[in-house]
This record gives sequence, structure tokens and C-alpha cells, in this order.
Amino acid sequence: MRIALDAHGGDIGLKRNISAAITLREEPTIDVILVGHRGQIEAELRRNDVGVDTFTIVHAEEQIGMGESAIQAVRRKTSNSISVAMELVKSGRADAFVSAGHSGAVVASALMTLGRIPGVTRPALGTRIPSPGNIAFVLDIGAVIDPKPEVLLQFGYLGAAYAHTVLGIDDPTVALLSNGEEATKGNSLTRAARDLLADADLNFIGYVEGRDMLDRPPHVTVTDGFTGNVALKIAEGTASFISVMLRRELTSSFRTKVLALALRPVFRKIRDQLDFEGIGGAPLLGVNGVVIVAHGHSSTPALANAIRTAAHAAEIGLTDRLRDALPVTVADVPQEAVV
Amino acid sequence: MRIALDAHGGDIGLKRNISAAITLREEPTIDVILVGHRGQIEAELRRNDVGVDTFTIVHAEEQIGMGESAIQAVRRKTSNSISVAMELVKSGRADAFVSAGHSGAVVASALMTLGRIPGVTRPALGTRIPSPGNIAFVLDIGAVIDPKPEVLLQFGYLGAAYAHTVLGIDDPTVALLSNGEEATKGNSLTRAARDLLADADLNFIGYVEGRDMLDRPPHVTVTDGFTGNVALKIAEGTASFISVMLRRELTSSFRTKVLALALRPVFRKIRDQLDFEGIGGAPLLGVNGVVIVAHGHSSTPALANAIRTAAHAAEIGLTDRLRDALPVTVADVPQEAVV
Repeated sequence: MRIALDAHGGDIGLKRNISAAITLREEPTIDVILVGHRGQIEAELRRNDVGVDTFTIVHAEEQIGMGESAIQAVRRKTSNSISVAMELVKSGRADAFVSAGHSGAVVASALMTLGRIPGVTRPALGTRIPSPGNIAFVLDIGAVIDPKPEVLLQFGYLGAAYAHTVLGIDDPTVALLSNGEEATKGNSLTRAARDLLADADLNFIGYVEGRDMLDRPPHVTVTDGFTGNVALKIAEGTASFISVMLRRELTSSFRTKVLALALRPVFRKIRDQLDFEGIGGAPLLGVNGVVIVAHGHSSTPALANAIRTAAHAAEIGLTDRLRDALPVTVADVPQEAVV
Repeated sequence: MRIALDAHGGDIGLKRNISAAITLREEPTIDVILVGHRGQIEAELRRNDVGVDTFTIVHAEEQIGMGESAIQAVRRKTSNSISVAMELVKSGRADAFVSAGHSGAVVASALMTLGRIPGVTRPALGTRIPSPGNIAFVLDIGAVIDPKPEVLLQFGYLGAAYAHTVLGIDDPTVALLSNGEEATKGNSLTRAARDLLADADLNFIGYVEGRDMLDRPPHVTVTDGFTGNVALKIAEGTASFISVMLRRELTSSFRTKVLALALRPVFRKIRDQLDFEGIGGAPLLGVNGVVIVAHGHSSTPALANAIRTAAHAAEIGLTDRLRDALPVTVADVPQEAVV
């Protein structure tokens, strides 16, 4: 599988992306295509004592900064690394695309270049979240901020198809994130979406509360991009808050320091399980191609994992599987000009 | 201060409420009025070897169950403990009301019995949340699910006035919970509310992300009741998830068990700081009277703290202070029939 990697994406940029590509050099089924400024990429490879011919490099003259307006940047900078990589996917020269860059720009570029699969009004960003013993997938986590109820119905289909084909779950449960389990709860959006999801050909189990989304999660939790984004950031913030408190208390005396040192493997194991920032990257579901958005401050292993996820998704033909799973009639809202 | 306590509120009900009242028996400035079924209350007092004359008891024939529809229950059961207690506040026979019962019923009953203060379209439930070193207050956490932007503006005034008068913060910072800090972020509700708050006579600092709401929080975070409720439950869920993982790992071997036992005071200290369930109860802000909602599974000390908060708020004249702080002109949306 040939995976186009946005060489400039993420807070650390080139250095981190090249390092992830080098990690995957030995994996026989993955060919990373580095998309970005050729001169800079070659210099970084040389710095790592890696031959410049090790990877296919596709030149892109421009980059999109994290602070730029997504749609404007994608339109103005026609040869930015994200759009150039997206063209590789469209033309079939790459099987998938991974970027730790501007997620809004990735979504906008994917919509413009790849387009939506039939039945999809707006694509969603999904992610696996940590949970005790169950696989939990949440979408949308930030692509669509003010969706119509019909869009949440589409997210239900997309999430269930992803959970089935990529995560290997038979007949995944689907729930709607809400402020309570009872049908009387929810806001005007979730109440309308709940009715649509209840009538859909899905294993829909109703509302799930924030607490239970982590505690005993449905396989797929559907929400709008605003709520999903706030929720994940709160979870990240809570985990980091607890870890700061633990560190403060455990380093407060010599005695606790010694005990903490002895328990270090335990703390490390827990920390590794607490990745709310996208285990294996966040797939963009609903466009004609495999696109994975990695967190801006992904570590090298996290970025390598996102590339593996992309390769796996491309290999099993994710896009076709989503296309098969989604009733075309689901898009009974007009296909608005979203970009 | 005479505090009316809903004797039947909460998951544990009578037993827990009576126990909290007994805790406060010796505090000279607090007189708890037990509102509920007289026979049952007297029986519970006797079980605790406490004289039935220790507290003023006000009989209420009915109770509202947690599963009931709030508005219907309040309307049909005219002599339920919540409404009877609310009448005591209205008539001045109680200075404040505390309930760990059906929060929707408390809101509905407060609206019907006490009414709103001028300038308030809908009252909000607020709560303090744990944060490292700063006082952080969030509203609304569940009273108003689909607010108009003007209602969020009112929440800004209510939250700032509460932070100033009850929590003792001069010129508290006020922010709007959103999916990113930049002004381009947010949904249609937060974007409209942001404009209103920026023009208000408040120390408004713009958007706050979920992560920063815990990490380096504004004094007052404003959000709609749906998002606020989801956010707090996610935070609770994350904290409980981490504590389950910690327990699992620490009890996995004899060695870790011994180490964990030695660190018990540290873990306990952290757990005590991680109360997302309403430190001192959640005040209902914007009605003509002091009303505090405690979490349904409040412990006896938590419930006692909520009663202390109520007494303090009543003593400093919270309702008058809120009335002074809120520009009457703020309510430029029609005072809808909300119950």
C-alpha cells in the first residue's frame, strides 16, 4: 500500500513525519510517499543518514499553517502539501493519505478533490477512544459543527460500517451522545436524529450519557462535531489534570518519590492506555478515498500507527465498503455547497 | 439561616438527608427544616436516636420520583416535597432550599413558585469544578437545553455575579466553552453569544477549549445546558475510568498491592479533589430565592456542604446581588412561558 504522508503536517512538522516514515521503512506492505518541499525533505533524510531514494518524494511548493482559514488556504495555495497529496489519492498514485496538519484544511481539500460518496452530505472525523475492555469509536469529533439531523443519521451508517470493516465488530451498537439516557432528554438536534436513527437499519440503542460513553460504551457513539470536539478535549484535560495532580503529590516527599518510582511501570501502562488523541489517527469518513487525520502533536509511534491504519483501511477497501453500507436515500437533505 | 431540605431527594433519600441534617445540628447559624413525609421523617430521626423536636418538620404528602417528567410531576403532585419547600422560601419561612432530588422538577417548581428575577429568561444551574489552583465555575450544566444566544449572555452576568459575591472573586474572567480558541471556531449558538458577551459589561475573554477549562480555567465558563451536562459527565467518566484502571493495575500483584497501600493517603487526597459532581451543590441562578441542587448520589458531607453553601448564599443576600448585577435590558428575548 502506497501511503501519501503530509511531510509538513503537525506541530513538529518535517522532523516528526520523516521519523515516522523511517520507522516504517522495513514494513514490507507499506510504501510511504513523502509529500512536501523536496529540498527540505531530502535535507532531513540526509540528517538521518537515510538515502534520498529510500522514499518516493512528491514535491509541493507550499504549506498550510495551523492558524490559517481552512477553505481560503486550500483555495489560494493550490500547490500546498495537503492538496498535492489528495491529488495522488484521486489519481490512484497513492492508496491513502495521512496528515497531522490542519484538519480543517484536510477536510476542505478532501471535499474539493475527492468528493463525497453517494448518500453523504458531510464527511465526519471519527476516532477510537480508550475504554475498559470494549472498542469505542466516536464520530464526529470536529468536521461538522452545526449538522442537520439527517447528517447524524449518515454518521451512524458511516460509523457502523467503519466499526464493522476496520475494527472487526459484528453488528456494532450505535448510540447518540446526550445529556441523559431517557428519550425525553437531548436537545432539538439529538431528538430529531434519534427518531431517524431508530428507523434506520442499524443496531441503534438510543442515547448514551457522557459518563457511560467511557464506562460501558456503545461501539459507535454519534454526535455533532462541536459536542464531540468539546467532549474529547474535556476527557484529555481531565486525564492530564489527574496526571499533574498525581505527579505533584508523588513528588512531594522522599518517601512518596521512592514508592512512585517503584510503581512507574504501572503509571506508564495507564498513561499509554489513556490516549484520547486518536488511537491510530482519525479517519475522515464519507469521502472518495482513505484519509486519516493524526493529532497535531502525535508522537512518532502514533504517527506510524496512523499510517498503518491508513494502509489497513486501504487494503480492505474501506471506501467501497462505506459506499455499500450507506443507503443513497439517506441524503435527503440537499447536497449543499459545503466548501 | 433556615434552610429547607428536601428530605426525600437523592438516590438514597430520607436516610442520607436526615444524616446530613444531623451533621449540621451543632452549627449555630444553620437551622435545617426537614420537608417531607412527617411520619417517615420522625421514624428516621428515632432510628438515629435524635429527638423529633430537634428539627422543624414541614409535612409534604407526595414525592417526585427520578424517572418522572419534571413539569407534569410538579403540576400534578401539588403537595410534593420540592414544591412545599419552595413555598417556604417564597413566603419567607425558609431562607434557602436544598434538594438532591429531581433537578428538572426543582427548576420547574422554582420557576412556577419563585419566578425569575428581572432580566432573566431562563435560570441556569452552575457548579464549581476541580481545577489546579484556580476557582472555576461552570453554567449551565443542565437546566436549559436549547438556549438562545441572549440566554447565554444572561448566564454570563449570573455567573460573574455568583463568582463575585459567593466565591469572592474580583472582576471574574468569563469565557464561552467552544471547540477552539479562535473566533472563527464555535457553532452558530456560540458565535452569536460571543458577540453579545463581547459587548457586555463583563471581563469576557472569548472562547475556552474543553482542555483549558480544566487546565487553566476562566473563573466563569458559560455554555448551554446540553453541552455543559455532557462535558461534566465526560469529566466524571474519565476520572472514574482512570481510578478503575489504577485499582486494576495496583491490585494485580502482591508487590503493587503493598506499594499502593503505602500510597493510599495520596490516592485519597487526589480522589477528594476530583469532585465533578458539584462542590457544595449546584446553585440555580436567576430565580427569586436561593435554591441549591445537590447531586443525586451526594455523600452526607457533600449534602452538608450544599446546605452550608445555601446558608452562606442566603446570608450575603445572593438573590438581591444577582438582581443588582443583571441589566434588565438583557432580556431582549420575550419572556417565554417556559414551564
